[in-house]
Amino acid sequence: MAFNFEILRQDARSGARLGKIGTAHGEVSTPVFMPVGTQGAVKALMPETLKELGAGMILSNTYHLYLRPGHQLIRDLGGLHRFMHWEGPILTDSGGFQVFSLGPLRKITPEGVLFQSHIDGSSHFLSPELAVSVQEALGSDIMMCLDDCTPYPATHQEAEDSLALTLRWADRSRAARQRLDQALFGIVQGGMYLNLRKNAIDALTAMGFDGYALGGVSVGEPKESMMEVVAEMTPLLPCDRPRYLMGVGTPQDIVRCVGHGIDMFDCVMPTRSARNGLLFTNHEKVVIKHARYREDPLPIDSLCDCYTCKNYSRAYLRHLYMANEILAMVLNTIHNVRHYMALMERIREAIRTDRYPEFQEHFFNTQRIADGDALAS
Amino acid sequence: MAFNFEILRQDARSGARLGKIGTAHGEVSTPVFMPVGTQGAVKALMPETLKELGAGMILSNTYHLYLRPGHQLIRDLGGLHRFMHWEGPILTDSGGFQVFSLGPLRKITPEGVLFQSHIDGSSHFLSPELAVSVQEALGSDIMMCLDDCTPYPATHQEAEDSLALTLRWADRSRAARQRLDQALFGIVQGGMYLNLRKNAIDALTAMGFDGYALGGVSVGEPKESMMEVVAEMTPLLPCDRPRYLMGVGTPQDIVRCVGHGIDMFDCVMPTRSARNGLLFTNHEKVVIKHARYREDPLPIDSLCDCYTCKNYSRAYLRHLYMANEILAMVLNTIHNVRHYMALMERIREAIRTDRYPEFQEHFFNTQRIADGDALAS
Repeated sequence: MAFNFEILRQDARSGARLGKIGTAHGEVSTPVFMPVGTQGAVKALMPETLKELGAGMILSNTYHLYLRPGHQLIRDLGGLHRFMHWEGPILTDSGGFQVFSLGPLRKITPEGVLFQSHIDGSSHFLSPELAVSVQEALGSDIMMCLDDCTPYPATHQEAEDSLALTLRWADRSRAARQRLDQALFGIVQGGMYLNLRKNAIDALTAMGFDGYALGGVSVGEPKESMMEVVAEMTPLLPCDRPRYLMGVGTPQDIVRCVGHGIDMFDCVMPTRSARNGLLFTNHEKVVIKHARYREDPLPIDSLCDCYTCKNYSRAYLRHLYMANEILAMVLNTIHNVRHYMALMERIREAIRTDRYPEFQEHFFNTQRIADGDALAS
Repeated sequence: MAFNFEILRQDARSGARLGKIGTAHGEVSTPVFMPVGTQGAVKALMPETLKELGAGMILSNTYHLYLRPGHQLIRDLGGLHRFMHWEGPILTDSGGFQVFSLGPLRKITPEGVLFQSHIDGSSHFLSPELAVSVQEALGSDIMMCLDDCTPYPATHQEAEDSLALTLRWADRSRAARQRLDQALFGIVQGGMYLNLRKNAIDALTAMGFDGYALGGVSVGEPKESMMEVVAEMTPLLPCDRPRYLMGVGTPQDIVRCVGHGIDMFDCVMPTRSARNGLLFTNHEKVVIKHARYREDPLPIDSLCDCYTCKNYSRAYLRHLYMANEILAMVLNTIHNVRHYMALMERIREAIRTDRYPEFQEHFFNTQRIADGDALAS
């Protein structure tokens, strides 16, 4: 099946929309949150578990898989889906953000990025064409164009120069495509400068992509700047294409940005926090190592329907965490991913039933009460 | 249900026997191998997974749980089964072997053992009475008497003195029991001296226990010494009680020792090896990090019915291992535990169908071929 996107309902009182993305590996409902499987595995989870938790699409990192085990190897073994035993849709990033994060280990040229591997220091050159070629070898359902991630802060001139590169690379990425069963998304850059972001949208939509992402957020800017970019730019993106906010975020960020019309999110937050013993609930933040949970017979979240909450006490999870048991990471990850997936289900249900503004208000009221509780206790 | 043991079939041509242990948490078929859940979790596995793999009874370590999170805490939360969400039978050791392994951090007195915690250096005194009390708080189905593990090598006098202590402690353990729904096993010590081992059996059977263990093996002695102790002593143990060989062992050890009449085994080998990337098969030893598996599309063992072998290539498992992914430990552990459980199923089936000597011969012939293959490749 070719890539497609359908809007099922557009909220009349906000930007929120309910939709459906179709790919060669099945459909996913939007707004969707994609758990991150950096190295071809969502850390600590089996694919069946991920599916049971409600995950529809996952994200995997081109940069990491290109370096190890190598995209040709994965292609020769039948592609990433088969390699990692995940039958659902996969989005791969382009490697741009990872290379950007290497800092002094990378050098940007008009042709692409020269960088050194974080694993063994070997030198590599990533061009827009190679990024597409690697993602085609992986066989992901959605590919991303290589972009130059504008740092924060950046002067207007720096952001403008960076954006010009991103736009040239977007055009070259389109030209480099060999496979049409994989979608290709363009990435809007421009730093925190709204006029540049608008230019980016005009240029990218003129080229035409299967979907559009807002990149260059979550790079250290104040939250208000990010929210301003999302609030102002999302409505300018073509409404008949998926809109993807890269690398975001907290449950609060997600609820707000869905209200502005974002359809897709990804973030390492639920999985990484889980491994660090930070567990999400709708009521309080559970830092499982705290002594207050030593003898606590309750689950992480009494209202959560996940395997971990149905079967284990905070006291046991604290014990596993303090004892460095691998199972702590497994059980914590199950809970946090389920927390995110359940949030997305509630978001979709609210849009479906024309209650998104009320849902959003209730969500933030509950959060405020929870924050107050946390401070008081 | 009170603890009971029934022999279903006694092989006419070897010591092998098929049996059934009944406990308050269900029945298990013997010969049984118990995966080790040192700290109240079989490392990397959820209890449901463990059950699916065919595990009947597991072992947990009194020493570790006494120190962290503490046996009173576990008792107050409903006992170890509920705490760790494992509904099947649990055997707890007495802590004797762990304390023995502390070396200079422990001092043995006639009353018990003074030792320092490996976690925080705090001082503790473990007596036979405390070992029973801790195990009763944990609520395990089978408790072990605190014993003095005779080191290897030991002079006859040293082994004799050590055994005398073990026997006095066994008597005190019996006297200390409060709960009769938990079985108590005695431990035969005596080092590699068969006359001392015989004395131990006489003394322990005179006291009367629910089952008998051979301890003080796998402490550095040559394999032939261990096998001699097992071959000579097992037939002297009461045939109407379970016979447990502590801390053993390799698949080869298990097949041999079942032939001598051992009913129960435990060892960290399948789980620890898995985390180190050493995978068991009936044909070759798979050290998953080896470059030869880099592009290998085959499962670990084509004949294995485990989840890992059904869904993942060696190439993927090698990638996960090299990339330090937690999932590597999960998938490897699933395979190794299943390998052990499937071996026990084949052992029990061979006894049931009066083919144990043939099974044993075939097993070792296959192993020899496998070793030859491994050397040739």
